[in-house]
Amino acid sequence: MALIVQKYGGTSVADTERIERVADRVTERRRQGDDVVVVLSAMAGETNRLIALAQEILPHPPARELDVLLATGEQVTVSLFAMAAEKRGFKAVSFLGHQVPIRTDAAHGRARIQEIPTQALRSALEAGAIPVVAGFQGVTAAGDITTLGRGGSDTTAVAVAVALGADLCEIYTDVEGVYTTDPGICPQARKIARISYEEMMEMASLGAKVLEIRSVEFAMRYGMPIHVRSSFNDHPGTLVVREDESMEQVLVSGVTYSRNEARITVTKVPDQPGIAARIFTPISEANIVVDMIIQNTRAGDLTDMTFTVPRTDYDQAMEIVRRVADEIGAESVAGDPGIAKVSIVGVGMRSHSGVASRMFDTLARHGINILMISTSEIKISCVIDEKYTELAVRALHEHFGLDAAPAGAAPGT
Amino acid sequence: MALIVQKYGGTSVADTERIERVADRVTERRRQGDDVVVVLSAMAGETNRLIALAQEILPHPPARELDVLLATGEQVTVSLFAMAAEKRGFKAVSFLGHQVPIRTDAAHGRARIQEIPTQALRSALEAGAIPVVAGFQGVTAAGDITTLGRGGSDTTAVAVAVALGADLCEIYTDVEGVYTTDPGICPQARKIARISYEEMMEMASLGAKVLEIRSVEFAMRYGMPIHVRSSFNDHPGTLVVREDESMEQVLVSGVTYSRNEARITVTKVPDQPGIAARIFTPISEANIVVDMIIQNTRAGDLTDMTFTVPRTDYDQAMEIVRRVADEIGAESVAGDPGIAKVSIVGVGMRSHSGVASRMFDTLARHGINILMISTSEIKISCVIDEKYTELAVRALHEHFGLDAAPAGAAPGT
Repeated sequence: MALIVQKYGGTSVADTERIERVADRVTERRRQGDDVVVVLSAMAGETNRLIALAQEILPHPPARELDVLLATGEQVTVSLFAMAAEKRGFKAVSFLGHQVPIRTDAAHGRARIQEIPTQALRSALEAGAIPVVAGFQGVTAAGDITTLGRGGSDTTAVAVAVALGADLCEIYTDVEGVYTTDPGICPQARKIARISYEEMMEMASLGAKVLEIRSVEFAMRYGMPIHVRSSFNDHPGTLVVREDESMEQVLVSGVTYSRNEARITVTKVPDQPGIAARIFTPISEANIVVDMIIQNTRAGDLTDMTFTVPRTDYDQAMEIVRRVADEIGAESVAGDPGIAKVSIVGVGMRSHSGVASRMFDTLARHGINILMISTSEIKISCVIDEKYTELAVRALHEHFGLDAAPAGAAPGT
Repeated sequence: MALIVQKYGGTSVADTERIERVADRVTERRRQGDDVVVVLSAMAGETNRLIALAQEILPHPPARELDVLLATGEQVTVSLFAMAAEKRGFKAVSFLGHQVPIRTDAAHGRARIQEIPTQALRSALEAGAIPVVAGFQGVTAAGDITTLGRGGSDTTAVAVAVALGADLCEIYTDVEGVYTTDPGICPQARKIARISYEEMMEMASLGAKVLEIRSVEFAMRYGMPIHVRSSFNDHPGTLVVREDESMEQVLVSGVTYSRNEARITVTKVPDQPGIAARIFTPISEANIVVDMIIQNTRAGDLTDMTFTVPRTDYDQAMEIVRRVADEIGAESVAGDPGIAKVSIVGVGMRSHSGVASRMFDTLARHGINILMISTSEIKISCVIDEKYTELAVRALHEHFGLDAAPAGAAPGT
């Protein structure tokens, strides 16, 4: 008999009909002998509806009160689910964030989980009930309601699984798992059977929005296996686990892309210590996150500085950079909001050389100019002209053998 | 500087636009120097929407989980109100039932308030904030969410006012106060300026649905004055206070009626001890509330038993009574779902005789036959044929001088 934490996302609980289907699934698992703890999101669209309501009053509502408002979304689904379980002859008990309790810091809207005492959940399990935990929400030491930020229910599920020492955390969503790339732009995309936490984090942060990245970090730290799968069928999904030898056989596990990028270049910057800080401090003070940074030294103590920012922050960043460029005596500032970032991810890169040059060569053969490059241990990213995004993704997907062989078994050549 | 508890009902907070108007009103009162604690209901229609959602799953959802679901209604309005106060430059802090805390027993769906510690509310007031309390909800000793039943927000408001030792509890609603009768059927109905708790309870329980009866009981026990008024204008409403001498000058304060009645008669019942229990025990076991009961003794140890039940329970009650009548050897059972109850209410009746006969005489002069009569210290009720309801109400309203003179000053003749 295993203890399983099952998390269902917003599309899986979008209405009472779907909540009943989830209850079928959960109670079926209970009948098979496993203990189940359920974690639920708000109904799809509900969080956005509540935010819109708040913004009818204030564009930037006070964070404490916004959390009180948003927490109602999961409160509705957990109580409805408990009713659906009861209808099927099972006892279920809903737990709000403050009832578990999910103890967090006081950073409203992006709170971090600090501690999850498990006594109440264990009592419910021992009494034969199905605990149904409201995802996304927590409570501060002072008793204020907090929320964990977008996708926070994934983190709730993993954290509850870790706290209870569960055998597995299942994340049910509206896709069948993690794919080698976006099937929307590459029909040859395949579901990945097993993927390491590290790869999953790179995939998630680069745009494959299946699992919230903090939940993967959390699972990695405690070695909690996550099974990402569809709530609409019984197909096995993607198992996110510790890296093992078979994974290293695969050179590239996935190809990701992001169109939410813009590039800014400052040319002929006097190359002195502290110049980078002069440029990037005011940008970070404006809460703009800089992703890639490249510095090219020219002759005569001059340097060019190129970096990327989220496209939504492009105008504001350009304004800041133009001002700073004047102050530090740079020659000019150029910007380009029409770029994309394409990346390949795979733990196999650690033990195989030549992956980067194969990526560059593949792009070149398709006539795609590389504007910027950044590399890490298990990923290589290239910034390219946005119009080549689909072409680049498809070319890389094919070149690294992702089109053909079954996932988890394909050699990288 | 006074401390005022202001409660706003569902129609007063039906959307963000109306919540902003309520915030105008509350912050204006704060500017005048008073301390204000706000108690809010759910948006009009929201509680019914949530119940319908639950009933899509189960016709009789488990009470604990229904309370979790329903409590979201007030959670939405208190957070939105706090945002609206902030927009006006005031600090406001929302309090859910478990945050105040409003401690109740564990009778889900109809919980009773046991205790309201005021430390958290006082801290907020001392910090210059406007506490915004979610009405209708509480929390058990075990930390479960409870609700107080329909109209429970009135009770929350009065209980919070009593706990804080407030100077006044204002109940804002969509009517301007308590009327001498239903203006919908009697255009001469007038707003009552002052009314005693006792009269208010008789008016409320008899059909003038302005204040929840438990809140009036609560206010009476602790002598908390209630001002019932409209949230849509600044007119003074009705003050519900301890009985005073001026009230006794008024013979009849109001005329009420109820069409939700049905009458059942069991004829020629053997008149033995225990017969009444044989009839009424199975009815009460079916959760049917019997209102008026009249017993007429006939010759030969036989008696007739007539009583009223809510019209919605009429069919079920008839079925039960027919079965019992057979068992106890009664001659026959007759029923009439087409009746109404008309009542006059007034503390002045205590010190004035002849009020009942004037009521009977008034009805007789209008050709209205009285089917049943019941009297208490401050009210007289007559059951009549339903078709005479409007006629009876108007005739009594006129006869007892309610049509003409200003409320609170009219002698009863």
